[in-house]
Amino acid sequence: MGTDDDAGLSAENLEVPRYSFLGPAGTFTEAALLQMPGAEAAERIPAASVLSALGMVEDGEVHGAMVPIENSVEGGVTATLDAVSVAHNLHIVAEALVPISFVLVSREPMPVEGITSIATHSHAWAQVRKWAEVTTPRAEFVPASSTAAAAHGLLSEVPVADAAICAPLVAQQLGLHVLASGIEDIPGAVTRFVMVTKPGPVPSMTGADKTTIMIPLPQDRPGALMEILEHFSTRGVNLCRIESRPTGDGLGQYFFSIDLEGHIAEARVADALAGIHRLSPQIRFLGSYPRADQKPQVVLHEVNDEAFSAAHAWISQLRGQTRA
Amino acid sequence: MGTDDDAGLSAENLEVPRYSFLGPAGTFTEAALLQMPGAEAAERIPAASVLSALGMVEDGEVHGAMVPIENSVEGGVTATLDAVSVAHNLHIVAEALVPISFVLVSREPMPVEGITSIATHSHAWAQVRKWAEVTTPRAEFVPASSTAAAAHGLLSEVPVADAAICAPLVAQQLGLHVLASGIEDIPGAVTRFVMVTKPGPVPSMTGADKTTIMIPLPQDRPGALMEILEHFSTRGVNLCRIESRPTGDGLGQYFFSIDLEGHIAEARVADALAGIHRLSPQIRFLGSYPRADQKPQVVLHEVNDEAFSAAHAWISQLRGQTRA
Amino acid sequence: MGTDDDAGLSAENLEVPRYSFLGPAGTFTEAALLQMPGAEAAERIPAASVLSALGMVEDGEVHGAMVPIENSVEGGVTATLDAVSVAHNLHIVAEALVPISFVLVSREPMPVEGITSIATHSHAWAQVRKWAEVTTPRAEFVPASSTAAAAHGLLSEVPVADAAICAPLVAQQLGLHVLASGIEDIPGAVTRFVMVTKPGPVPSMTGADKTTIMIPLPQDRPGALMEILEHFSTRGVNLCRIESRPTGDGLGQYFFSIDLEGHIAEARVADALAGIHRLSPQIRFLGSYPRADQKPQVVLHEVNDEAFSAAHAWISQLRGQTRA
Amino acid sequence: MGTDDDAGLSAENLEVPRYSFLGPAGTFTEAALLQMPGAEAAERIPAASVLSALGMVEDGEVHGAMVPIENSVEGGVTATLDAVSVAHNLHIVAEALVPISFVLVSREPMPVEGITSIATHSHAWAQVRKWAEVTTPRAEFVPASSTAAAAHGLLSEVPVADAAICAPLVAQQLGLHVLASGIEDIPGAVTRFVMVTKPGPVPSMTGADKTTIMIPLPQDRPGALMEILEHFSTRGVNLCRIESRPTGDGLGQYFFSIDLEGHIAEARVADALAGIHRLSPQIRFLGSYPRADQKPQVVLHEVNDEAFSAAHAWISQLRGQTRA
Repeated sequence: MGTDDDAGLSAENLEVPRYSFLGPAGTFTEAALLQMPGAEAAERIPAASVLSALGMVEDGEVHGAMVPIENSVEGGVTATLDAVSVAHNLHIVAEALVPISFVLVSREPMPVEGITSIATHSHAWAQVRKWAEVTTPRAEFVPASSTAAAAHGLLSEVPVADAAICAPLVAQQLGLHVLASGIEDIPGAVTRFVMVTKPGPVPSMTGADKTTIMIPLPQDRPGALMEILEHFSTRGVNLCRIESRPTGDGLGQYFFSIDLEGHIAEARVADALAGIHRLSPQIRFLGSYPRADQKPQVVLHEVNDEAFSAAHAWISQLRGQTRA
Repeated sequence: MGTDDDAGLSAENLEVPRYSFLGPAGTFTEAALLQMPGAEAAERIPAASVLSALGMVEDGEVHGAMVPIENSVEGGVTATLDAVSVAHNLHIVAEALVPISFVLVSREPMPVEGITSIATHSHAWAQVRKWAEVTTPRAEFVPASSTAAAAHGLLSEVPVADAAICAPLVAQQLGLHVLASGIEDIPGAVTRFVMVTKPGPVPSMTGADKTTIMIPLPQDRPGALMEILEHFSTRGVNLCRIESRPTGDGLGQYFFSIDLEGHIAEARVADALAGIHRLSPQIRFLGSYPRADQKPQVVLHEVNDEAFSAAHAWISQLRGQTRA
Repeated sequence: MGTDDDAGLSAENLEVPRYSFLGPAGTFTEAALLQMPGAEAAERIPAASVLSALGMVEDGEVHGAMVPIENSVEGGVTATLDAVSVAHNLHIVAEALVPISFVLVSREPMPVEGITSIATHSHAWAQVRKWAEVTTPRAEFVPASSTAAAAHGLLSEVPVADAAICAPLVAQQLGLHVLASGIEDIPGAVTRFVMVTKPGPVPSMTGADKTTIMIPLPQDRPGALMEILEHFSTRGVNLCRIESRPTGDGLGQYFFSIDLEGHIAEARVADALAGIHRLSPQIRFLGSYPRADQKPQVVLHEVNDEAFSAAHAWISQLRGQTRA
Repeated sequence: MGTDDDAGLSAENLEVPRYSFLGPAGTFTEAALLQMPGAEAAERIPAASVLSALGMVEDGEVHGAMVPIENSVEGGVTATLDAVSVAHNLHIVAEALVPISFVLVSREPMPVEGITSIATHSHAWAQVRKWAEVTTPRAEFVPASSTAAAAHGLLSEVPVADAAICAPLVAQQLGLHVLASGIEDIPGAVTRFVMVTKPGPVPSMTGADKTTIMIPLPQDRPGALMEILEHFSTRGVNLCRIESRPTGDGLGQYFFSIDLEGHIAEARVADALAGIHRLSPQIRFLGSYPRADQKPQVVLHEVNDEAFSAAHAWISQLRGQTRA
């Protein structure tokens, strides 16, 4: 948790908040970071990798890191899942959803049909290929290490290409000329990002929350996954994401990364996690935080806090009759 | 619980314990009662029916009642299930198992082949019929209201029959001559009885215990029974008896009478009952008590009290981080 | 299935259909029988007991027997469950629902307030007691062996009572004077009856059907009941009645009598029963028949016959690739 | 499935079998390929990537491809899962397990303590780091694109390093000098590989088989995964691997890649897959094949083929009674 006496270097003592994010500047990840309250005025530090961004949190250099966790167009998701799940000093305190929409940009206004080369990340290129085949059939694809790097490359002394395909944010930051927007072949894609900090107070319950956990799959029980899932279903807890990841300890050894609907402060969530703790004591709680979509939680009457309280009171009264 | 100031009439104040039982004297039910510590010296009061025996408990006339609850040769089981389940002031504090073995008795020694009539209860007759066809083919069956009544009938001025088939206890009590014993066609039958008292301290946990509960089946959920059973299976709680009984409130309205292995003082049992209380808040606890067969409970490590304590401690620590 | 060459005596060869029912005449059971098509013109034979009514079916004396199976005011339900479940030559081919509503009748018109004695069955008396306390506070209760017997008793040379409480049917059959109707304390009670025949063609599927089965609970598996119920839930089959009954073979030995929604001709029902047959090969099919309430069955798309056919075709195609 | 009349080019018509594998030569993947009967004499073609190796199968250039599917030290696992799951013309027909054990090699014999640089793949380096810190503390790590490339690099005009860490196979193929073997920090690691071909006859059942399937998770049902798993548990089918993979179609869209114990020719496996097909009709069968470890399958009596046949026969007989 940090015992930095060297106060000047510790994030906790900085007046302006500092956040790292999976860089470079201007990517969808920075767009996600900018959704956080106060992030506009904060110091935002691009990191070369997810591990590097999270390492700055662990080292106390920043207050938090924004990293992709689900379906990123620029990668990093697996690294985030693994890093957050394995670390013992990182918690998720917020999530952000960013629509994945691309713009075609150039340094100066130019006719689209005149473009002969387009720089972008290969994942991004894959998502606009049909549009490009129709609109810029003569353009050659110039691979870049990120969509932001492609955008920056237009401003170098020897531009890497006539145009770039990138996130709207970097186009705006660099003052590039937007030739076309919303050019992705399949509209509606969204990437999910999370804000990761050192463990601290869990964000308050809002009634529209998610909780992220990591559960090592017990080896010695064939039906183990089903037994775990039953602990959710018997408490009416819905899952919104479940992913397996190898632990790296051998064939057939997995952990499950799970997002569930609800907050650890709710009895039904706490009770389900307690039940799973008995089966898999290495379960890890990675945070409860407000849903980015603010969709309120519907809780059935038999699993609301009142039902848990009534059951608890009944048992206590029964046990009061038990001889010591 | 009784507020009798009229101390002289209250069972609690009697020096010699008093127990009622499903009579008449000498039946298997009295044999069950005699298994209880101190019952030999206690006042034992035969009752005409299960309801009458239990009524004496509710009225404070006796300390407890011994009644059959499972597979009785002389009836009464359904009445016990219904009465105990519906009453709000009766608990089970002990169980007894009695082997159902019959003897053929007469007033004076006589050759078996000379018997021309045998008195007994029709249920008992059904259980010795093959033996009787072979051994006393000429004997006529004389129905009696109980096996004990049949035995008593041999001693009346005009004996009801040459011989009677009854429980060993009544033969011994009346000093009858045993012509043959162990005459049941299918050996090994056992009837289970329970000692019922007013609610009071629950008997201490022994490590070989049973708990009896009553669960009304929630009407509005087709999979309700399965949801209830899942609460047992997710806590590793085995059931040793499950019976449905109509509530009397209409078609399709049932309650389940269940005996489970374990004691309310165990975390896994308490947690399962709390879970079911949420689904069916009218669940009733009817007692935790030592098993008559003293078969020790095997508890899997993931549901023992330590596992529950560890899970509880983990959740408490997590929630300590939650902002108020 | 009957190989009676002695045609004149066999029910199958009679021109007028013959049905037995739990008598006496004029009870709710006969009212249930009269709901069957053609029963008005059929020969209706009252039987002294459920077993006797069913015995006439087994002996070929009647085409079928109408007996109560759920919540009867005049008893017999347990006997029906046990007899039908254990017999190997009886099937259910129809059900009937009869509202349990009582009338107060007398031989001649008379003022209700003048009544000093009322005959009826004790179960019926229990259901009108509050009404009687208010309306005929001076009337003494005269127990009768059935509500119909009470009604008949008014017509004997020495009437058993001033009035009787009985089913509307018997009042009409005997031409008694109805002093009050709908006098039950809790309106809306219904008893369910079934028509039982020898095994033969199963009634056609109507889309609003029930199926009755008997499942012995496998002894050697603690979670056996839950495993059985999973076979229903994984095929989307709802249960409308589940009752346990002791097999009579020893403590803890039960069979379950179950009514489920659907017809054996539906793939989801057949597949669920096949799954349970593997766990409990002594499962018995006791009939598929139209629901009396004609409530149509709602079948989820993933368990309709098309889904089963598509799955079957897929597997067959896969297995066609398997080397012999 | 290939309708190449151009016989000379089609793999099916080649006299010598041809197999592709994830190259380069001498890796653990080639060691896996060499476990296949006849592979020693076959033409073995290293491919630059898993997709390239599989593409040769789809194009008919080779009879099959050996690729890693679980815990590979040299990567490729995710690519294999995704490629095999999504393709409609690839099946798994065999698996191979290869112990992941490394050797330290040099061109000529030399003292280990004299080594100043070691070439290998970064994943391999991670697995021998502790050994290297102790044994060759002065040696610098020289990254290579594969362990085989590192070994080859020792033979180039200007050797890339003093020594290399690689698989035993490539050391033997190149005639390198083995300075140390079994140098991995954690012994016992195994990588699993599969032989992939075009769809054809499924390998015969051996009694020790696995089946690989791909199941898209139905979106509209929160408990969908649990419903799917129930289809396995109700047929006693154990899972040996379950992994989720994003479909690429949006947040929360997954498919599950599953290996189960058993063969499609077994009734319990076919029945489970048919059940899941109803929930998720896009399920794909990717092959049944012998287990590399030849561990025989234990099948509970209630789910063996006899139990399924008996259940099927019972249902057929019942339905024969149903009116058409």
